Amino acid sequence: MSLTVVGSIAFDAVKTPFGAREKMLGGSAVHFALAASFFADVRIVGPVGDDFGDPEYEVLHARGVNTDDVEHVAGGKTFFWAGEYGENLNDRETLDTQLGVFGEFQPKLSDASRACDVLFLANIQPDLQREVRAQCEGARFVALDSMNLWIETAPDSLKETISGVDAVMLNDAELRQLTGEASLLRAAREVISWGPAAVVCKQGEYGAALFDAEEFFALPAYPLERVLDPTGAGDSFAGGLVGYVAAHPGEELDGDMLRRAMAYGTALGSFNVEEFGTERIQRLGGEEVAARVADLERMTRFADAPVALRG
Amino acid sequence: MSLTVVGSIAFDAVKTPFGAREKMLGGSAVHFALAASFFADVRIVGPVGDDFGDPEYEVLHARGVNTDDVEHVAGGKTFFWAGEYGENLNDRETLDTQLGVFGEFQPKLSDASRACDVLFLANIQPDLQREVRAQCEGARFVALDSMNLWIETAPDSLKETISGVDAVMLNDAELRQLTGEASLLRAAREVISWGPAAVVCKQGEYGAALFDAEEFFALPAYPLERVLDPTGAGDSFAGGLVGYVAAHPGEELDGDMLRRAMAYGTALGSFNVEEFGTERIQRLGGEEVAARVADLERMTRFADAPVALRG
Repeated sequence: MSLTVVGSIAFDAVKTPFGAREKMLGGSAVHFALAASFFADVRIVGPVGDDFGDPEYEVLHARGVNTDDVEHVAGGKTFFWAGEYGENLNDRETLDTQLGVFGEFQPKLSDASRACDVLFLANIQPDLQREVRAQCEGARFVALDSMNLWIETAPDSLKETISGVDAVMLNDAELRQLTGEASLLRAAREVISWGPAAVVCKQGEYGAALFDAEEFFALPAYPLERVLDPTGAGDSFAGGLVGYVAAHPGEELDGDMLRRAMAYGTALGSFNVEEFGTERIQRLGGEEVAARVADLERMTRFADAPVALRG
Repeated sequence: MSLTVVGSIAFDAVKTPFGAREKMLGGSAVHFALAASFFADVRIVGPVGDDFGDPEYEVLHARGVNTDDVEHVAGGKTFFWAGEYGENLNDRETLDTQLGVFGEFQPKLSDASRACDVLFLANIQPDLQREVRAQCEGARFVALDSMNLWIETAPDSLKETISGVDAVMLNDAELRQLTGEASLLRAAREVISWGPAAVVCKQGEYGAALFDAEEFFALPAYPLERVLDPTGAGDSFAGGLVGYVAAHPGEELDGDMLRRAMAYGTALGSFNVEEFGTERIQRLGGEEVAARVADLERMTRFADAPVALRG
């Protein structure tokens, strides 16, 4: 049940049509860890600077996330990202990126983090992802995220890294860019031919699709009356999905398991966007998660009935 | 089991990254009618010019579509549309629109077309849709499509028309534009408050969502290796959906019925895009439709399993 996540720990400044925050806790590893903490013992690995203090640690500890491998770089500043979302929340503009200590990040995993049962490689440079993956030999399930920057600047390294993991999580634009295939089905099959058993394609407000060697599965996003801030939704989704897998050691990791995991990921992602940053997930209850998964099961079910088709 | 559709009959010139056609049969009523013909007796109402002849009628007759109410305007030209799709097929540019006889279209329904059990008002001026709807008093199910042009130029008329139908089919941009709501859930509820029992939100490659007063349902698009031409996909989807309803007289038209109908619509839409214009649907077999619906049922099913959630 032990899950290690390696990635960014950040402060975000976010403006959306519904409000703004000047400095809030963020970063892919943080959003992932908080979501995954509903399912498993989570250890977070990532660098922070002098500006990262007790209030931030407290958010992670309150959800039981182990921060022993959070690396405090003395004299450094924590990764900072500022962005603004447009009216439809699908378009976002990066206003500022200050890598700070994240720019020189060399992941250092303790023995406990290396001994993880499940590993998530959040979006960092693919050479580093591969080094981490090699240190966690015993992990029975390894998933990774990436981004257009690495697809453009380090495609060969990224492909090599992908060949060593079990599941790849990308959005549809990234999946197309990575493979040069317009069809997501063909793109996913291409990625699977490199090694992974599964590709999870994140589609924002439309939900997510799961491809493995034989099957296709898709789940809509949970319908919401109000989306305040999409930042971190993909990482919360990944945290729910990978966390669910981590919560089921000794069970067969087949398509049915991954479908259920997608539903938990979808639920966590949906809570993430209801408020700014980590605000909603911080006060989320497990019974709320379970209720949304039950809703999703109902919202996607149909039973065919015979009809005479002419022709 | 009688279904009347009123809308455009056209010639299309289409260019996509995968090929081009200079003049092929198209129009919303044509795509709808061919798809619906797998389920019910379909009557098509729309205007054509002197350039519309036996080869075009033959396409409709081969699928059993009744063309008695196709109005031949002597000396006129059939509606012509030319468009080009970009690499990702979601962006399309209109290169030419020649309304021809469609510009002066005043729907004239025979008694047989008026006596329909189910009516589909394809995308025409909303005043005309309302006139047609009034002539088909006995229809037990009426659905309509519309477009941004009418939302911008005739919003009040469109709202009045919507208040008199059972189901509205729009894409997500249109639904947001019509209601001013960013959330599709809120947008759909707003439309339902005007009168319709259901809103079907078309989402292109992501599938479609169904909203009624209580429930939300979503279905992904059928995954395809190759999409050649998206023209008419929404109308084929509507034809499958509304056709399925028409094929079930005397059964309760509830959410379960509409969910199944969505699956048949999704199947028809998926065949539509595999080739140019009506080419694929013209040689489609009923057993192929049934197979895709069965696939969709499998591709969307997940069964929750208990998990201990922490928090």
